[in-house]
Amino acid sequence: MRLAVIDGRAVLVRGDRAADIRWASQGRLPTDPMTLLEQWQRVRDFAVGLSDDAYDIEVDPDALEAPVPRPRQVFAVALNYPPHAAEAGFTPPDEPLVFTKFPTCVTGPRTTVELPKGKVDWEIELVAVIGRPAHHMPVSRAWESVAGLTVGQDLSERVSQLQGKPAQFSLGKSFPGFGPTGPVLVTPDEFDDPDDLEITGLLNGEVVQHDRTKSMIFPVPELIARLSAVVPLLPGDLVFTGTPAGVGNRCTPPRYLTEGDELVSRVQGIGEIRQHFAAPAT
Amino acid sequence: MRLAVIDGRAVLVRGDRAADIRWASQGRLPTDPMTLLEQWQRVRDFAVGLSDDAYDIEVDPDALEAPVPRPRQVFAVALNYPPHAAEAGFTPPDEPLVFTKFPTCVTGPRTTVELPKGKVDWEIELVAVIGRPAHHMPVSRAWESVAGLTVGQDLSERVSQLQGKPAQFSLGKSFPGFGPTGPVLVTPDEFDDPDDLEITGLLNGEVVQHDRTKSMIFPVPELIARLSAVVPLLPGDLVFTGTPAGVGNRCTPPRYLTEGDELVSRVQGIGEIRQHFAAPAT
Repeated sequence: MRLAVIDGRAVLVRGDRAADIRWASQGRLPTDPMTLLEQWQRVRDFAVGLSDDAYDIEVDPDALEAPVPRPRQVFAVALNYPPHAAEAGFTPPDEPLVFTKFPTCVTGPRTTVELPKGKVDWEIELVAVIGRPAHHMPVSRAWESVAGLTVGQDLSERVSQLQGKPAQFSLGKSFPGFGPTGPVLVTPDEFDDPDDLEITGLLNGEVVQHDRTKSMIFPVPELIARLSAVVPLLPGDLVFTGTPAGVGNRCTPPRYLTEGDELVSRVQGIGEIRQHFAAPAT
Repeated sequence: MRLAVIDGRAVLVRGDRAADIRWASQGRLPTDPMTLLEQWQRVRDFAVGLSDDAYDIEVDPDALEAPVPRPRQVFAVALNYPPHAAEAGFTPPDEPLVFTKFPTCVTGPRTTVELPKGKVDWEIELVAVIGRPAHHMPVSRAWESVAGLTVGQDLSERVSQLQGKPAQFSLGKSFPGFGPTGPVLVTPDEFDDPDDLEITGLLNGEVVQHDRTKSMIFPVPELIARLSAVVPLLPGDLVFTGTPAGVGNRCTPPRYLTEGDELVSRVQGIGEIRQHFAAPAT
């Protein structure tokens, strides 16, 4: 099942067609994606029986919005791919390094991001969306608490991210538009192996990041288990699972996003998101 | 004006009496405190005209809940009092060090906290509550975006807080019950000087933390300005403003919370919150 949001309304997506969930369910299911995530199993059951006729909306990729527009909690994980930990100058961590992207930075799949002052870098990431309350969830059952996967960018302004002693990452990663997500939320059963997905970041058409999610030090189930050992996870919470090697500030010389750049972030079986970058409004 | 929450319902408090806002407004204002914070000026205007007769509920301090039960964003600031920065072994920061306490940890003023494995420490803090959307707010007008102040504890499990390289503080400060707040939200006009409040933490009756909020490196308006320069602040967002010197892990020898301890956190003009600590349920 593939869920997207158009004009604030949750839709199911099949190919290039979409079905409005509230309309197709004759009002038995609500419009708001956050409310739907609270009753995810009902949505799943409903989707199974839905005929092709219900998919009567032609999807305009530019009209898609964040599949999870108002997460209560956003977890983000640093240094979760060994080659990225190495390029950043750290040993691979023994425990996930967890920060947040403050929820107002979460946006949709096709956006223009105003560049703040500083050095703005890219970090393509797989994002897991929680679909049922999860506290002390064992690894073996962790996928059960995942509603689905989507693509995200953990855009990062490196000056403010790294300036503190000790550096706290969250603020420099939370400028407006710094958490684009989408284009759709895809349920785990749609993948041959949800733990092994090709992940690719392209800057102006050039591949700058490329790996497979099986490279993660802490795969999705491990992250769910460790996060939920501390924090009760809620439906709609997001987990940004970390970025592969190839970020800009570890290039020689360092590279940062500038006005006019186009960043495409792609995960196998989900699709791609696309950001353009602009000078700040004056 | 003093706002509290009893049984999920927002009330105004005067002395030891409370007025149910929805009832006293004959349904013109809602019950839910998060919704009220979205229309804060209406609440202020309503409170001005409310007669003593409307305060017909006797307040039971044990029945008070978190004045802001479901914040969208929780900002927390490290090392904001010079003596605490010194005891922690850091130079006072040039910019606020910002992390989060994940919102599910926010609870009310009188609670029992189950101690997780590890070393749990206290950090009394003044907490500012946002009352209107604020983005790029100048220092001179920052108090206008504050709905009010309340008392908080930034309870911290030091092993998980400090283990990462680089250490990210948020997860170890977000166990269930680690963000108690209350007992009331007090509007800035209620204070002679909202920038200079006595702040006191007591462990089993012994004063362990004591300072005045004017000691802050970044006072409330400065924090609002710097946070809102990055993140659009929303009504109901919380800002934990940092703790004075006297935390347990900087005592010689270090001290941590144990089963049976009572922690009282008090801020002048607001009141106090009181936590008891218990062994984890097995």
